[in-house]
Amino acid sequence: MTSFVLTNAKISTMIEGPTAFGLIDNGAVAVEDGLISWIGTASDLPASYRSLRTDDLEGRVVTPALIDCHTHIVFGGDRAREFEMRLEGASYEEIARAGGGINSTVAATRTASEAALLGDALKRADSLIAEGVGTVEIKSGYGLDVETELRMLKVARAIAAQRDIRVKTSFLGAHAIPSEYAGRPDAYIDEVCIAALSAAHEMGLADAVDGFCETIAFMPDQIERVFQHARALGLPVKLHAEQLSNLGGAELAARYQALSADHLEYLEEPGLLAMKKAGCVAVMLPGAFYTLREKQLPPIALLREHEVPMAVATDCNPGSSPLTSLLLAMNMACTLFRMTPQEALAGTTRHAARAQGLNDTGTIEPGKKAELAVWDVAHPAELSYRIGFNPLAMRIMGRLP
Amino acid sequence: MTSFVLTNAKISTMIEGPTAFGLIDNGAVAVEDGLISWIGTASDLPASYRSLRTDDLEGRVVTPALIDCHTHIVFGGDRAREFEMRLEGASYEEIARAGGGINSTVAATRTASEAALLGDALKRADSLIAEGVGTVEIKSGYGLDVETELRMLKVARAIAAQRDIRVKTSFLGAHAIPSEYAGRPDAYIDEVCIAALSAAHEMGLADAVDGFCETIAFMPDQIERVFQHARALGLPVKLHAEQLSNLGGAELAARYQALSADHLEYLEEPGLLAMKKAGCVAVMLPGAFYTLREKQLPPIALLREHEVPMAVATDCNPGSSPLTSLLLAMNMACTLFRMTPQEALAGTTRHAARAQGLNDTGTIEPGKKAELAVWDVAHPAELSYRIGFNPLAMRIMGRLP
Ligand SMILES: [Zn+2]
Ligand SMILES: [Zn+2]
Repeated sequence: MTSFVLTNAKISTMIEGPTAFGLIDNGAVAVEDGLISWIGTASDLPASYRSLRTDDLEGRVVTPALIDCHTHIVFGGDRAREFEMRLEGASYEEIARAGGGINSTVAATRTASEAALLGDALKRADSLIAEGVGTVEIKSGYGLDVETELRMLKVARAIAAQRDIRVKTSFLGAHAIPSEYAGRPDAYIDEVCIAALSAAHEMGLADAVDGFCETIAFMPDQIERVFQHARALGLPVKLHAEQLSNLGGAELAARYQALSADHLEYLEEPGLLAMKKAGCVAVMLPGAFYTLREKQLPPIALLREHEVPMAVATDCNPGSSPLTSLLLAMNMACTLFRMTPQEALAGTTRHAARAQGLNDTGTIEPGKKAELAVWDVAHPAELSYRIGFNPLAMRIMGRLP
Repeated sequence: MTSFVLTNAKISTMIEGPTAFGLIDNGAVAVEDGLISWIGTASDLPASYRSLRTDDLEGRVVTPALIDCHTHIVFGGDRAREFEMRLEGASYEEIARAGGGINSTVAATRTASEAALLGDALKRADSLIAEGVGTVEIKSGYGLDVETELRMLKVARAIAAQRDIRVKTSFLGAHAIPSEYAGRPDAYIDEVCIAALSAAHEMGLADAVDGFCETIAFMPDQIERVFQHARALGLPVKLHAEQLSNLGGAELAARYQALSADHLEYLEEPGLLAMKKAGCVAVMLPGAFYTLREKQLPPIALLREHEVPMAVATDCNPGSSPLTSLLLAMNMACTLFRMTPQEALAGTTRHAARAQGLNDTGTIEPGKKAELAVWDVAHPAELSYRIGFNPLAMRIMGRLP
């Protein structure tokens, strides 16, 4: 059923404009062949649509299907023991000696089969899907060798094959320095990361290229070599930037017309203005802020003032954000970062689409794909207000379920 | 099926002792007539149990069914608009003028029918049940008149009738001063609260008596009048104490052999030692701490040092903790309060049972009720480590589902 009408709905179109949430009360949406063809007040529905199957939503809220635009849901193992050790008072040294940290995830990912990685990742994808997520971005970056980076991206593609969800992949070879290249980040970039990116591109496995620009990872000049290669291949870029310090990652990202710069707790005005000029989305990741108990807040007020689009994502990863609820990320964006519920929902719909380079989803308007979520709430602000509650009534991906 | 064996399980008995989580690897649990009759290593299972139906759990983790020992899940309306206004920069005055704050919940609760209150509360109860909760405590306190306080408690009892969950009720007439008694808290206590408590007790609606001891609510001498009445009726007490300041609520609670004192961010050593002596459970409510963005942490290290039992609960309520995930409360107890995963799980099982005055649930040991949760995780620490993820495989309330 790819042509139908939803009626008696409170439609949060998320179209930018004077109305909060782009709200249409007592609204209807007409869908033809999986595309939105009409939206408006239900009583204005043209007669031509009245022959289509019609679902009465009894006043429920409809939003665009949610978009999680920054995740690392493909990985081996888990880090529960490390979490526990830290809370039991273990030092970083002791945790490292016990095999903790990102290297433990790299080791577990390298030894995991494609099937095992897929099985684990599907559980995390299902958790997102259950909350109305229709598109998810998935990064590589726990292989840090050519073969495992490719395997991670294949698993990401397999998720889209096995579930009714759109997947955008980002190649994140420049995530960390593997132990065999300890102290030789330049050699790692040149010998492994660039080669893996070429291979991923050749196999059609990479939709974008990402990096982690931080003193504990890669410096701007190293990231830039990866970005230059991405540009040569015609791939868009994005960047983990200014999470723990300001290395000028935002400016670097802007210089390469990045889709997004992500984290940004230490972003300052020059980087922010560069992002604005380049049309770069600021992706807020409050789950990592929460887990790492950071104190430095991203400059939300300044981003708002300069109308830099803000997205919100889970950053789901085994170390700093083992979070598989995008609704909870929205609540954290409000509670911890003081974003408004409207900004949080724009951050997981309209702006999250843009952070993926997608213009066929993320709002409810004619011509876009009918990727929708129906919620058992009275108002879209409730989606950010409630904590640990899933009011999803129906997820629509082009067809009625 | 009330007699059965679970085998090939990693059993977190939560029995106090030298083993973390009271763990039995490769374990089995035998249940007869809804009661646990044997636990141990699977290979030691006595022959007499081998005729019972046996479920192979394939290595999954079994814990006691979880217990949420502090909730306010029965209420009318929601406070999403207030949440939104605050984030949009509205002052407390503006929110009050727009009808926000606890009085808005009182007004919505007073006008809501029993059926409407039940319908809303069941959604919240279902969210807890879906995460393996087997027992929930539910407070009154949004009626603040005799009739509505009784209605709230009836709705709490109705939840136990409509769902396979145990409900313990707490009469919380001393929650706030209703607007019609503004400035006359003593008159409210004497004219309404005491009368409502008598009526609730007569109708068998109150399992315990609670109060909110805080400058914005009731002072210790007012709470004490309620506690004296509870004692006369033979009802146990508990108290919201030292959340925003130290008024000596913990000492007061201890003097009345309270089951628990809850919140306790401002608890100091004298109150803590009084609680220890009285055997009073310290209930940690990190959801409210998170939502209110508090800075003052409860004295976890001191509670640990003095071996005061710590419970963890959602405090689910529409204002300061619209949280319906007990697993998330456990993660917050670890991440925000630095409790260990083992303490967090003891806080939602063994110690939460004690905070309810229950001694037939909360651990897995012979003689206790077979109230169990089976989890699709490798280790019980994972339950606190993951955020916004529900790995429940099966909830058992005396019988196999
Ligand atoms: Zn990331
Ligand atoms: Zn409370």
